[in-house]
Amino acid sequence: MADEPFRYQQLEQWLLQGIHDERWKPGDRLPSIRELCDQRGLSKATVQHALQRLEAQGLVEVRPKSGHFVSLVPTITKTPRIISRIEAPRPVTVSDLFQDIMRRSAAFDLLPDLHAGALPPGIVVLNRAIGRALRRQRGDDFQYYDEPAGEQLTIQLARRGWPAQPDDLCITSGCQHALFLALMASCQRGDVVAIESPGFYGVLQLLEQLELQVVEVPTSTDTGMDIDALEEILEHWDVRACVVSPAFATPGGALMPMDARQRMMALADRYDLALIEDDIYAESGFSQIPDTLKALDETNRVIHCSSFSKVLSRDLRLGWISGARWHSRILHLKLVTQLASSRYLQQGVADYIEEGGLTSHLRRQRGLLRERRDQLLTSLQAWPVPVRVTIPQGGLAIWLELPDGVNTLAAYPQALDQGIVITPGPLFSVSGEYTNCLRLSFSHPWDEQRSRALS
Amino acid sequence: MADEPFRYQQLEQWLLQGIHDERWKPGDRLPSIRELCDQRGLSKATVQHALQRLEAQGLVEVRPKSGHFVSLVPTITKTPRIISRIEAPRPVTVSDLFQDIMRRSAAFDLLPDLHAGALPPGIVVLNRAIGRALRRQRGDDFQYYDEPAGEQLTIQLARRGWPAQPDDLCITSGCQHALFLALMASCQRGDVVAIESPGFYGVLQLLEQLELQVVEVPTSTDTGMDIDALEEILEHWDVRACVVSPAFATPGGALMPMDARQRMMALADRYDLALIEDDIYAESGFSQIPDTLKALDETNRVIHCSSFSKVLSRDLRLGWISGARWHSRILHLKLVTQLASSRYLQQGVADYIEEGGLTSHLRRQRGLLRERRDQLLTSLQAWPVPVRVTIPQGGLAIWLELPDGVNTLAAYPQALDQGIVITPGPLFSVSGEYTNCLRLSFSHPWDEQRSRALS
Repeated sequence: MADEPFRYQQLEQWLLQGIHDERWKPGDRLPSIRELCDQRGLSKATVQHALQRLEAQGLVEVRPKSGHFVSLVPTITKTPRIISRIEAPRPVTVSDLFQDIMRRSAAFDLLPDLHAGALPPGIVVLNRAIGRALRRQRGDDFQYYDEPAGEQLTIQLARRGWPAQPDDLCITSGCQHALFLALMASCQRGDVVAIESPGFYGVLQLLEQLELQVVEVPTSTDTGMDIDALEEILEHWDVRACVVSPAFATPGGALMPMDARQRMMALADRYDLALIEDDIYAESGFSQIPDTLKALDETNRVIHCSSFSKVLSRDLRLGWISGARWHSRILHLKLVTQLASSRYLQQGVADYIEEGGLTSHLRRQRGLLRERRDQLLTSLQAWPVPVRVTIPQGGLAIWLELPDGVNTLAAYPQALDQGIVITPGPLFSVSGEYTNCLRLSFSHPWDEQRSRALS
Repeated sequence: MADEPFRYQQLEQWLLQGIHDERWKPGDRLPSIRELCDQRGLSKATVQHALQRLEAQGLVEVRPKSGHFVSLVPTITKTPRIISRIEAPRPVTVSDLFQDIMRRSAAFDLLPDLHAGALPPGIVVLNRAIGRALRRQRGDDFQYYDEPAGEQLTIQLARRGWPAQPDDLCITSGCQHALFLALMASCQRGDVVAIESPGFYGVLQLLEQLELQVVEVPTSTDTGMDIDALEEILEHWDVRACVVSPAFATPGGALMPMDARQRMMALADRYDLALIEDDIYAESGFSQIPDTLKALDETNRVIHCSSFSKVLSRDLRLGWISGARWHSRILHLKLVTQLASSRYLQQGVADYIEEGGLTSHLRRQRGLLRERRDQLLTSLQAWPVPVRVTIPQGGLAIWLELPDGVNTLAAYPQALDQGIVITPGPLFSVSGEYTNCLRLSFSHPWDEQRSRALS
């Protein structure tokens, strides 16, 4: 019995074999749950379990009301490799290339000069709400500094397991600003901060700026930070804070499973860590919006950071932070360094959320992102060289591993000459690794022009 | 001849005597320029010169198309006293009261809960321009980070003696944010920074935050920073930077004369100072908009900081910085801590300036502020206690010295209980001085309710 696979495992193997043998080709519809139950003499629960496992591996996709389809990319599902070596904490020195890419801003787009197309309907509605908030300004409103947002944000967050109160939030100029305040409030110069590798390069820049030391935690591009590696690091070194992006982390779109989150919280308690949650991609989840890490925070040590830049509009510059035990220090820091945030803007966005504009926009956006992800993955199947890619269930980008010897950093200026901005792998770490890796965005339609640009 | 006063001085003395003897009472119209020419046998230029000097002293006011009037406040023109003692540099510890007052934000208003009245026409036009910029967003505009403002700002600044280029400017979230970037870029922890005393409390908070040391420079509430005192300080201590507000500095509205500016520039060169110019009040000048200090900067050491918060709307959160030799470091700091600033907002404000909206608004605003200043000063004449006040030619506030023994800091919570926010003198220094002083704003109409609130 012990060696005999479960029934769902048998079905899973059978389906896998069928996909491998191309009985069902990429894009084909699999037999329905009912058909599988009948054909294989299995219960509905067993069939669903097997399909869910295939879905979790990115081999099968659920299309609501249509059934299960073979994912478009089964030939390239090998997950990119990540570092496994752990190195001692060290100061951060970031190359000028970071600044260049951040200034070119796109970073998420291959062809940043391409500004075509009409405004998405969700943004039109948003802009109308902001316009109305501007027209509703009365009397001396414009002479005061304060923060009217919060309530609508807490309603959104409560749906993700965290019953936040408006006073728990502080409005910021985007998520990068929130991360800056979080690190400034929870760390002192020279402190060691654990981060994901590969991970968001903006954090590396903040660490450099604040003269903090970094230790990189090997991070799966599927399931996020390696908790065993984190534990090993915490045993060895005195780590003050850990920046983590549990939901669809850049660059690979990893989603941290619940057991890893719980283990991380327990470690944070044991080693008295500040956990800085970068939640910016969470609402992009194609089939589920994961709970916040903050929802598990019983010891008031998770600093939650996010903004609307990834799922709504970068141009709002509207983010937020909930500072846990460091919150009053964060409020003070924000006040001292910047005073306040736009009230009309917050009011406009709050109205937009309240009237359901955000929910509709996100619904459309998620479908769109999924489509664009598939377009991108499909176009990669035609590539002349073998690649390994992530198949993220959220976020705006995939992580691509090219054959050994390819140097994406060297390719950056060449691509730039042709007006193409790529995000080379080495930017996502200070380890010097990932020279043959690349982050590719699917936040724009994967059209002919971009497709040609890449090849 | 050497001892004989010039003809304009004789006329000035004669007019002063007449005001003193109440031949012309506060609010009275003086004889017209033509009448004075005829009666006193003087040239038009001489009469104008004398009147201009009286105007500069705040004793006489020009009302366009009406003539010259005796200022409403000749009985209280004694300038408040300031510190003359110089103390060694020291770390800054700022009381919680600062944060409280900044959070109550008003700081510039006595009754912050009073939000009545229609929106000023200049703000209505501004909001329309921003609304249009929002509607004009196209395609993927909202997905990019960049800064379209600049050109219109440089046109404004060029009129003030400084031919800035758009690339010289970096957009910030207001002037406090600009000052933060300026200090962070030009100083290291422990450095000594010279500031005005009394001066803007927001700078003290920044120094505390950045762990910089402060040395306070005695500062006249009429003519600004005492350059002799500054020189003495620079001889004694190794000062890294000096924050100065040459145009209508808070709290008193001082305007630094040209010779003081030139001496300050020469000292900055000799002692290799970063000069951080807080220019936020400049455009409020009632009869003249002074040139920027930056206009005198031949050695690339003046960091110019400003925003639209004081003369247009606090709710824009739109400021700028020109970082001189520290500019690239400032650009990097801004990028790392906050990425970008709203593009639609900058576009809206740029359009507003280009279409002449700002110019019209400022013209109306200056007249209004002058009227409100006079209302406030008039109401002070009726006070039961003797006061010394500044009579500023710009800015939004006066500085008020009450009799010795009055403790404005102790009065703060009492006033707060009645819903009144005052800005106690001790907040404008770390010296412990100014306990009997107060900053009073005239940025709101000085109506009955506020008048009662004060007494």
